[in-house]
Amino acid sequence: MTKDRNGNFFEDFRVGMKLRHATPRTLTEGDRSLYIGLTGSRAVLATAETNARRLGLHARPLEDLLVFNTAFGKTVPDVSLNAVANLGYADVRFLAPVFPGDTLAVESDVIGLKENTSRKSGIVYVRSTARNQHGADVLTWIRWVMVHKRDAQAPCAEAVVPPLEAVVSPDRLPRHDFGAAVSNVTALTGVMDLWDDYEVGERIDHPGAMAVNDSDHSIATRLYQNTAKAHFDARAASAGGGRRLVYGGHVMSLCKALAYDGLENALTMLAINAGSHVNPTFAGDTLVCATTVIDKFDLGDNAVGGLRLRMIGAKNVDAASIVFPDARAGRPVHAPDVVLDLDYTIAIPKKSATWSNR
Amino acid sequence: MTKDRNGNFFEDFRVGMKLRHATPRTLTEGDRSLYIGLTGSRAVLATAETNARRLGLHARPLEDLLVFNTAFGKTVPDVSLNAVANLGYADVRFLAPVFPGDTLAVESDVIGLKENTSRKSGIVYVRSTARNQHGADVLTWIRWVMVHKRDAQAPCAEAVVPPLEAVVSPDRLPRHDFGAAVSNVTALTGVMDLWDDYEVGERIDHPGAMAVNDSDHSIATRLYQNTAKAHFDARAASAGGGRRLVYGGHVMSLCKALAYDGLENALTMLAINAGSHVNPTFAGDTLVCATTVIDKFDLGDNAVGGLRLRMIGAKNVDAASIVFPDARAGRPVHAPDVVLDLDYTIAIPKKSATWSNR
Amino acid sequence: MTKDRNGNFFEDFRVGMKLRHATPRTLTEGDRSLYIGLTGSRAVLATAETNARRLGLHARPLEDLLVFNTAFGKTVPDVSLNAVANLGYADVRFLAPVFPGDTLAVESDVIGLKENTSRKSGIVYVRSTARNQHGADVLTWIRWVMVHKRDAQAPCAEAVVPPLEAVVSPDRLPRHDFGAAVSNVTALTGVMDLWDDYEVGERIDHPGAMAVNDSDHSIATRLYQNTAKAHFDARAASAGGGRRLVYGGHVMSLCKALAYDGLENALTMLAINAGSHVNPTFAGDTLVCATTVIDKFDLGDNAVGGLRLRMIGAKNVDAASIVFPDARAGRPVHAPDVVLDLDYTIAIPKKSATWSNR
Repeated sequence: MTKDRNGNFFEDFRVGMKLRHATPRTLTEGDRSLYIGLTGSRAVLATAETNARRLGLHARPLEDLLVFNTAFGKTVPDVSLNAVANLGYADVRFLAPVFPGDTLAVESDVIGLKENTSRKSGIVYVRSTARNQHGADVLTWIRWVMVHKRDAQAPCAEAVVPPLEAVVSPDRLPRHDFGAAVSNVTALTGVMDLWDDYEVGERIDHPGAMAVNDSDHSIATRLYQNTAKAHFDARAASAGGGRRLVYGGHVMSLCKALAYDGLENALTMLAINAGSHVNPTFAGDTLVCATTVIDKFDLGDNAVGGLRLRMIGAKNVDAASIVFPDARAGRPVHAPDVVLDLDYTIAIPKKSATWSNR
Repeated sequence: MTKDRNGNFFEDFRVGMKLRHATPRTLTEGDRSLYIGLTGSRAVLATAETNARRLGLHARPLEDLLVFNTAFGKTVPDVSLNAVANLGYADVRFLAPVFPGDTLAVESDVIGLKENTSRKSGIVYVRSTARNQHGADVLTWIRWVMVHKRDAQAPCAEAVVPPLEAVVSPDRLPRHDFGAAVSNVTALTGVMDLWDDYEVGERIDHPGAMAVNDSDHSIATRLYQNTAKAHFDARAASAGGGRRLVYGGHVMSLCKALAYDGLENALTMLAINAGSHVNPTFAGDTLVCATTVIDKFDLGDNAVGGLRLRMIGAKNVDAASIVFPDARAGRPVHAPDVVLDLDYTIAIPKKSATWSNR
Repeated sequence: MTKDRNGNFFEDFRVGMKLRHATPRTLTEGDRSLYIGLTGSRAVLATAETNARRLGLHARPLEDLLVFNTAFGKTVPDVSLNAVANLGYADVRFLAPVFPGDTLAVESDVIGLKENTSRKSGIVYVRSTARNQHGADVLTWIRWVMVHKRDAQAPCAEAVVPPLEAVVSPDRLPRHDFGAAVSNVTALTGVMDLWDDYEVGERIDHPGAMAVNDSDHSIATRLYQNTAKAHFDARAASAGGGRRLVYGGHVMSLCKALAYDGLENALTMLAINAGSHVNPTFAGDTLVCATTVIDKFDLGDNAVGGLRLRMIGAKNVDAASIVFPDARAGRPVHAPDVVLDLDYTIAIPKKSATWSNR
């Protein structure tokens, strides 16, 4: 009759297991306001009801990473309560917009397992999917995470490592039904740079800088109902000679908000191709970031095109000093002040949309 | 024509006085979001609109302690602006759910007064009640608080100490009209433990731990429009060699949120039988808590039963190290790291609900 | 094809330029809740839906300074990203209430320019106006700000200094359509002091005190989507031997919330006549404030009258120690602990409203 809730350890997982995460969560305008207060998000579609309507939507969707972080938080008690480290993301696809009042229910499938040679831990690969109250998938992602074993001697099944694509190919990118009205975006942001104006290889040093406070990141992580102890237990952190770790998803949100300047006309994230939390962030650190354009995708759509971007976030340095190491040949080597290396794809209006709209 | 607002001192109170607290307050989804961000609440009925409907409610109510703390905050300017200490609670009953958009108006009756032998202060007993915009009582509680005298020489009326029951007896517990649909809760939380699965004497060590930050508790206390200076005046606290005190209601909310793990299927608080803030909490402290089951009440209801719980919150220790001193023989003696001793009763679905639902 | 966003420097401005600020912003109940959490606002019209209705409004408007700070934040990227200092405000008029769901779009006209003799910077005067989604002006203000030059040698146009009135005269004050129902306010606040009860020269020492935390002011400033680096870049501040500056608009909001006690029946701000941020505020400071009544305006309205108030905010002192230096003869000389000197006009019910309502 024990009510201990100690989460799953590595040997508790089996390939093919389905985890239904507790409990569904309704997101509202209250969550949006707090998200803006915590990150400074200025995303054009999300900032004003009138913006969404001028761009052809019936209502303003919630910020992409508010949805991602909320859905991610739901998976923590079952997947990563006993995690050593969150190792990476792949094939994250933003399938449909989420609006205030929508409820997300999240499930995960265990798609891979690989015990470490130390036998003290192993890597768990999960495919997670968030559905709205109408049963439509709105977000899906793979992540892999190193999880402690309860008992190093416990036997484990044979290793299964799922195939992981380095990039969500254009044919697998979600299609949102943007129309010609998206060309109005330049009148809202006052910035003329559209899909056509970005060049592969181009670099943008975002001008902002954002100090992280203990209370900010705690509020953000609780908002996502993410219960990972590393973010909340100051006593345990201090006993280990350290400090509470800032949740990596909050670092992503802060960097994404800083990246508004230079990418003002971005409409939505379509995918996260790959992402890693390179070094920890702590309260007191000041974050900056820079972006390079990796690729451009013509989505076969008159209104919008895709930009594949690589955003590197760093702490306590100038954005101009950030180096982009080669990511094609295995795990890139980063400076110790780099905290985030995120490869993602956005939808942004094309000039052709402007033309056809005349 | 002075506009000084110095609150009531002990000699200003009379038994029978009615205090209408300023001003009514409307609670919204914005308050809920902030409450989740400040506490990490995962209460099943409050977390998703779809949860509330699957459990047979027409909408999702606000968290019990958001309602309690908001109503409590309203009483501060009239009752406890000149408080030495908040001594205790009794007969707190959650009479009806509060939904976003509801407005709370709060009144108090002075039901007891007892000057201290020092003549510098006295104990004020008040019965406070919050009503919604339809005039229905939603929350009622007794608290007693030690209040400074303006003038030690001022004469005071004869002592009146109201009778205080140690527990809200089952016949006086509020009846919420839960139906058979509450048996769906296990599908939402993924946890099978219902009323029938808890045993008197059973102990639950909740696995979470929560560091308190200065900004968190300040935002929470302002959200409740609670103006007690001990929480906000860093200069006065520092001059006294101390730090700003964390509002006790925020400590209750944090411990209640930690207690989700092990009590996942709880639907609502029915009563707080007794409560005391044993030692102060300050920013930087990490809170943990443990619960014992004191009693089980069959409420004469097929759908839900009552569990009387004792939750002890402590700072900067392991939950497993918390000791539950005997509370039946007067004021229990606690370790210096204990911050909260709360005796409360919840409603939780019965397995019989599951049976009758087949 | 650069995407550098470095804002305007002094030599980029021309008198007559129109700046359309990005992007419009919808305010909601979520923003209100966060505003209450960040400031402790208890403004009677904004605190409860039922209050607004009893006072004759169809819905409860958002807090005046939430609207001001949101609109102000919109102007930062174009006007003051390269500011040395925000020098002052004049002719701020709150033209119409803003309700949850309303969207603000903000434009500015450059109305004056004056290069400094050092040639390294100059003063930019702008008139900014916020409009709602129906095209109605809701807020207008003048501010002047010292802005760096990109290049000290760059030629500048001839100086133009716009006329600045010291006070918004009664005939130019906005008329809100308050009716006789506003006399109900005393039943809501429990305070009987109305327009008739305030005397020119009267002083009110507000009893509260509010410590400022780094996270609070960061969340507030991000909520307003204000991107000024001085508030967010801890690394740059630290390199300069300093700390992050608290946004002056947050200081105004905190002092305004403290000033509730003594001005409980105030309905709305009509104007800010003049305002200056006298000294910087940093996290850790505790704010207090005092108010004097400068003037009383009979607005030719049975229901409400105008009170012209001067509120001085100070840090780490008693409100009673605040000195009100003469402001009529040029720039007043303040003690180093003074942070805010704000001259503003409110609408407050008249007793005559009570009479006519009988």
